[in-house]
Amino acid sequence: MQLQVLLVAGTHGNEINGIWLFDEWNKSSFLINTYGIKTFRVIGNPEAKKAGKRYIHHDLNRSFQEELFLTRNSSNFEVSRANELVNLFGQTGKNPCQIALDFHTTTASMGSCLVVYGRRDADLALASLIQNELGLPIYLHESDQKQTGFLVESWPCGLVIEIGPIGQGLLNSRIISQTKLILESLMEQIHQVKNLNCFFPEKLIIHRHIKSIDFPRDEQGNIDGYVHSRRQSKDWQELKKNDELFFKLNGETIRFEEDESYVPVFINEAAYAEKNIAMSFTKRELWDFKKEWKQSLIDVVHQK
Amino acid sequence: MQLQVLLVAGTHGNEINGIWLFDEWNKSSFLINTYGIKTFRVIGNPEAKKAGKRYIHHDLNRSFQEELFLTRNSSNFEVSRANELVNLFGQTGKNPCQIALDFHTTTASMGSCLVVYGRRDADLALASLIQNELGLPIYLHESDQKQTGFLVESWPCGLVIEIGPIGQGLLNSRIISQTKLILESLMEQIHQVKNLNCFFPEKLIIHRHIKSIDFPRDEQGNIDGYVHSRRQSKDWQELKKNDELFFKLNGETIRFEEDESYVPVFINEAAYAEKNIAMSFTKRELWDFKKEWKQSLIDVVHQK
Repeated sequence: MQLQVLLVAGTHGNEINGIWLFDEWNKSSFLINTYGIKTFRVIGNPEAKKAGKRYIHHDLNRSFQEELFLTRNSSNFEVSRANELVNLFGQTGKNPCQIALDFHTTTASMGSCLVVYGRRDADLALASLIQNELGLPIYLHESDQKQTGFLVESWPCGLVIEIGPIGQGLLNSRIISQTKLILESLMEQIHQVKNLNCFFPEKLIIHRHIKSIDFPRDEQGNIDGYVHSRRQSKDWQELKKNDELFFKLNGETIRFEEDESYVPVFINEAAYAEKNIAMSFTKRELWDFKKEWKQSLIDVVHQK
Repeated sequence: MQLQVLLVAGTHGNEINGIWLFDEWNKSSFLINTYGIKTFRVIGNPEAKKAGKRYIHHDLNRSFQEELFLTRNSSNFEVSRANELVNLFGQTGKNPCQIALDFHTTTASMGSCLVVYGRRDADLALASLIQNELGLPIYLHESDQKQTGFLVESWPCGLVIEIGPIGQGLLNSRIISQTKLILESLMEQIHQVKNLNCFFPEKLIIHRHIKSIDFPRDEQGNIDGYVHSRRQSKDWQELKKNDELFFKLNGETIRFEEDESYVPVFINEAAYAEKNIAMSFTKRELWDFKKEWKQSLIDVVHQK
């Protein structure tokens, strides 16, 4: 069976640049070079797109959990949609795909980056190829019990691509160009793996998720301080003890008080306020590339 | 009767920085200096705020039209709300206010600016005072039959304050600081007018609305080109013949072809795509300050 890749945009309905790129691609099939690889491209959450919202009932990118599918709660649009996407494009689905690439945008100043969920060998191998090619940072999201059920985890190999900063519901030339570039680079690298003609780096830089922190809140639970102007838009930049974190309008600056230093990401992502996340802290680490990652990706692509 | 000023934030429910500032102000009454002037502060569209949307049924800031009130369409939330605000704070309302200040944000790179609807003398006088104090540009919105029913028009004097760029639903330190600064500056100037101790400039710079242009669209009416990277975020900067306007993914650049040059504003405001507005064109003009503007503002403040 030939390799098939699932491409998803609009998993969040108000992240519209990828959706728009896919729409244009549907009009002119040569817009994106897929290197002859069969792709299926879908709008993750078309209902939320119509409504101009992130989701209707529940974050689709937290809905890919078997226990949710089993309850078959058809009144929850996103759980039904997650189930539908797995039935259509999952490994035992109608159009089985081996790799899923999920294109997102963020209001945080993340530039372009890759998000890897857990430490699956094939994911790390594919992310390494892209980091080697484009220099993109990799955010390893793991050990977060509150955030689970991500789309890409339902496929043997999958990455999230995050590009920002961009407001929700806003089309932007830079974001579209970056999305197109990374999509084509991913297809090129997958093509090279298919041809066993790929070059893996010896090292990769990982930003490993440690924890998330909330905004300052008042007694009623309302946010009563915002990200300090000296921290706003400083994603990927080290946060050290006594650095400014939040500011309250009574003049109080809330500083970072831990001895340990971190690299914050997703600073002031608009959609995370409801998840009680003002930003996430990572550790920047240099990892050795492992041979088994390469083999795992080759196995996925060649469906061994 | 003493002077009363109506302050509105969240006329659009997803423009949250002003709402947040008002909430904090409610907690600490000394946060904003109103120079002893009685103010009423309200969330324009609290239902839309809850829903995280610009509006529920209809743009509230296009709903202040008598013919809409007369139909008393109570199933339209915004028309009811507009009617309610006029009944509560209008000139013949329960808490009559003479001036309305309406705080907005935009996804366009407008910086801080004032919007004046039509050429009411008192509006132009108050805007002149702020331009003289803070140097803010003034956008004179007029002669646009498609856009009517603005909130401030229901009060004897009223200005819209627009601050950007900021994504919808996103709290930002810079936007909050700018909102607070302009609010205090407005209150200070109104206080000076009340004390007949105000200094009006001899000239003011007006950006007079000429027309709006739409995005390029395909045969189905879908947007098929975005604002060109060389025009994105270039609000207030002159657009001349042959300058880049839009870009299509087939490689086509759409240039500005008129001989006349303009100053574009509200370039790529996310909420205007549905109104078929990619940007608006203005003419930058130097106007002489007229004595009758001053008298009109004094009359409003002193309720003559």
